[in-house]
Amino acid sequence: MSTAYRPDPAAIIDLLGVLAYGELSAFDRMAADARMAPTTALRAALSEVAAVEMGHYRKLVTRIADLGADPQQAMAPFIEAVETFHHRTEPRTWGEALVKAYVGDGLAADFYLEVAEYVDPSTRQLVTEALADSGNSEFAIREVGALISGDPTAASRLSLWGRRLVGEAITQAQQVAAERDALTMLIVGGAGDLTGISLLIERITGKHTQRMTAIGLSN
Amino acid sequence: MSTAYRPDPAAIIDLLGVLAYGELSAFDRMAADARMAPTTALRAALSEVAAVEMGHYRKLVTRIADLGADPQQAMAPFIEAVETFHHRTEPRTWGEALVKAYVGDGLAADFYLEVAEYVDPSTRQLVTEALADSGNSEFAIREVGALISGDPTAASRLSLWGRRLVGEAITQAQQVAAERDALTMLIVGGAGDLTGISLLIERITGKHTQRMTAIGLSN
Repeated sequence: MSTAYRPDPAAIIDLLGVLAYGELSAFDRMAADARMAPTTALRAALSEVAAVEMGHYRKLVTRIADLGADPQQAMAPFIEAVETFHHRTEPRTWGEALVKAYVGDGLAADFYLEVAEYVDPSTRQLVTEALADSGNSEFAIREVGALISGDPTAASRLSLWGRRLVGEAITQAQQVAAERDALTMLIVGGAGDLTGISLLIERITGKHTQRMTAIGLSN
Repeated sequence: MSTAYRPDPAAIIDLLGVLAYGELSAFDRMAADARMAPTTALRAALSEVAAVEMGHYRKLVTRIADLGADPQQAMAPFIEAVETFHHRTEPRTWGEALVKAYVGDGLAADFYLEVAEYVDPSTRQLVTEALADSGNSEFAIREVGALISGDPTAASRLSLWGRRLVGEAITQAQQVAAERDALTMLIVGGAGDLTGISLLIERITGKHTQRMTAIGLSN
């Protein structure tokens, strides 16, 4: 991290905007996915994780407004990428829904937390709060574990699904990077140089591998 | 209300069970309906109302467990009636979604609050908290008002929709009453006699009419 680096205020609005739309979108996707749960208790558990996202969403749009920007306009440039990601990774089974909630949210959180290192302490604090584990890790690890132990082929199918989630996330992130100069410059400027960027990518993929291992899947 | 009346403990579990499943179900129905909103801000507003339901759900199932019953078993007898209600009243437009969130929730709340008069103070307190207006009244009144003012035929279509919601709610309530003796006896015993029951129904329909008027619709 380059301490001399000063991010463009537009990049902060972009960061908060993509995060806010991501939360709103994660909310209703998870709420819908929860319907696939095999029991009412598990359906409620994923629904509760979804509900937590709306609290984060509220904090993020409040901050966007406090910074003098319009939350709807701040989110608008990211709607297509986020929706395309969800459309291409629509879970067909309860196991896929669980892995998506755990791996997808974890990957997004790791990325945003890295970027938050490059912004002012107050924005960093907000991003960290919005990305705090909503309690779904333990839940996902336990439930995916149960699915895998009862079905030997499930682990390989869900491992493949995890790789697909990462692939689609990278595709959409590249799309956003190509279109949003201020946000891209925030990351490039913050990371310092190409070595910094490749270290950032290494850290994120490393954490993803750890997460797959924790859930009993291969990367 | 007959103060000498002592409800069957099974009726309390039934009351909490149907309320809990109602909250869980309202959550994901509203989360899905929010997708019909014409703007991201309105979609977020209905999503936030939905998220509040999960907090209520958690309180209700915690109480069921504290009373020594299994929440899943307590909810099970009511799944079919609640799901049938939602299936038959699936909104096709944003206006229908708003009216359902406002009129449907209001009707359910009035009914449960009446029944809560017949139970112990601690359960009554919990039910009252779980049914506290989640902030959707003002929102629905404003947004339905905007829809009606811009489209002269909308008021009559949405008035008809409001009547359909009441009709389906009554049909499902009768179904539940026919099957759940303890819960039915709680209401009959609490109301005292047939006169008491008809006064209860009068109060609920009276409040429904007030609600329709507040939203600019006819009953």
